Amino acid sequence: MPVSKTVKLSKISTRAPKDLNKVTIKEEVLPKMYAEIDELQNLLYAENKHSLLIIIQGMDASGKDGLVRDVFSHVNPNGVVVHSFKVPTEQELSHDFLWRIHNKVPPKGMIHVFNRSQYEDVLVTRVHDIVSDELARKRMKAINDFEQLLTEHNNTTVLKFYLHISPEEQMERLQERLTMPSKMWKYNQADLIEAQSWDRYMGYYEEVFTQCNAVPWHIIPSDQNWYKCYLVADKILKTLKSFNMKYPGLKK
Amino acid sequence: MPVSKTVKLSKISTRAPKDLNKVTIKEEVLPKMYAEIDELQNLLYAENKHSLLIIIQGMDASGKDGLVRDVFSHVNPNGVVVHSFKVPTEQELSHDFLWRIHNKVPPKGMIHVFNRSQYEDVLVTRVHDIVSDELARKRMKAINDFEQLLTEHNNTTVLKFYLHISPEEQMERLQERLTMPSKMWKYNQADLIEAQSWDRYMGYYEEVFTQCNAVPWHIIPSDQNWYKCYLVADKILKTLKSFNMKYPGLKK
Repeated sequence: MPVSKTVKLSKISTRAPKDLNKVTIKEEVLPKMYAEIDELQNLLYAENKHSLLIIIQGMDASGKDGLVRDVFSHVNPNGVVVHSFKVPTEQELSHDFLWRIHNKVPPKGMIHVFNRSQYEDVLVTRVHDIVSDELARKRMKAINDFEQLLTEHNNTTVLKFYLHISPEEQMERLQERLTMPSKMWKYNQADLIEAQSWDRYMGYYEEVFTQCNAVPWHIIPSDQNWYKCYLVADKILKTLKSFNMKYPGLKK
Repeated sequence: MPVSKTVKLSKISTRAPKDLNKVTIKEEVLPKMYAEIDELQNLLYAENKHSLLIIIQGMDASGKDGLVRDVFSHVNPNGVVVHSFKVPTEQELSHDFLWRIHNKVPPKGMIHVFNRSQYEDVLVTRVHDIVSDELARKRMKAINDFEQLLTEHNNTTVLKFYLHISPEEQMERLQERLTMPSKMWKYNQADLIEAQSWDRYMGYYEEVFTQCNAVPWHIIPSDQNWYKCYLVADKILKTLKSFNMKYPGLKK
């Protein structure tokens, strides 16, 4: 659901409605949706008029990497670029906080996916008391302006997803990293410490949803991967369809 | 086959050997290979010791985009980045010819794919008489040094593929762009003019194969897509296996 006014994350379910059939969605609905997205991506590239920026945010272990893998493994990699924003480098820190972000926005014809984004600069930085409330407000204003620039000046559609998991689900997934050999490399002691700041994170996220709402946020219940992928794919598909694209004819 | 000494492209077949079974390869062998590559990419990312740079060159309509699509659609997009090098921009031209290339090489843990590459600077530029034979030789030396830098100083393995098609196959594919509505956007009159320089291109490619051979080239018969993908996937798979990677344990 797109965010309207104020949001209280703890009141929003992290799970799928009971009447949805997981097997049908995973095995029948999703493959068809992925094929449709792939087809529309080709058209987006050929037509070269629109671009799509997909921003993915969420707590550690909320399934950001998995979402990128599941949804975009089915799309032609020529037309999709994933950018994972990590802790800024020294060079990046010597610029304004949107400099490294602006550098990676999609040109016409392309889909870019941000795995974390400019929003970290008003989330993790606040939890760690690097950024004051006042500075955070200024940054959120700048983010709004920036997203508007992309929308108005390069025909970019911005889709913002928050992967909403419960603290219990997060703890389970972090524990998994301690015991499954193929996941151990993802384990980071710092994640457990971050997890203790759950309530502060939720509060800052809630502020982001209402303050940075020129382009609306979509809160995606994400305790179950199949439902998370279904909601995100559905939104992407509807967005691409709304462009009413067609293949250009021969150049004159 | 990897290139050893001198090469005469017109003597090398552009098709698969007759005794290979297309259906078995397409429907049984390739899906297994793609799944293995996907698994090894995850390991590459987790281990964070090696990186892989895949360079794809070939004439117009030789199937570079299609190769990227077929092979890398099956790999987690978090770990693969495709760079398509087009005609250099003014900013790029104000630097040495390897500047924009160096900027896009893979960091440890990643696979980067170059759809066209530094080799255009000793191919199309020579056909258009922008680069003299002498300058081309200097550039080829610089390319060798550059590839050695990546190999020796960041543990990058470079795989170079030339997609080898016949001039007849190329003409058929270019004609297709004039008649198929979903391909018309790819049509470019300049391609037909370029095609007339076929023999000069072949000559310059042959020089590249022998001069830039510190990292060897692989000539891939590419008139049939399934065979092209099979050969490239096979080489990638063997390369990844040769790294003998394993999942790191917990950080200390």
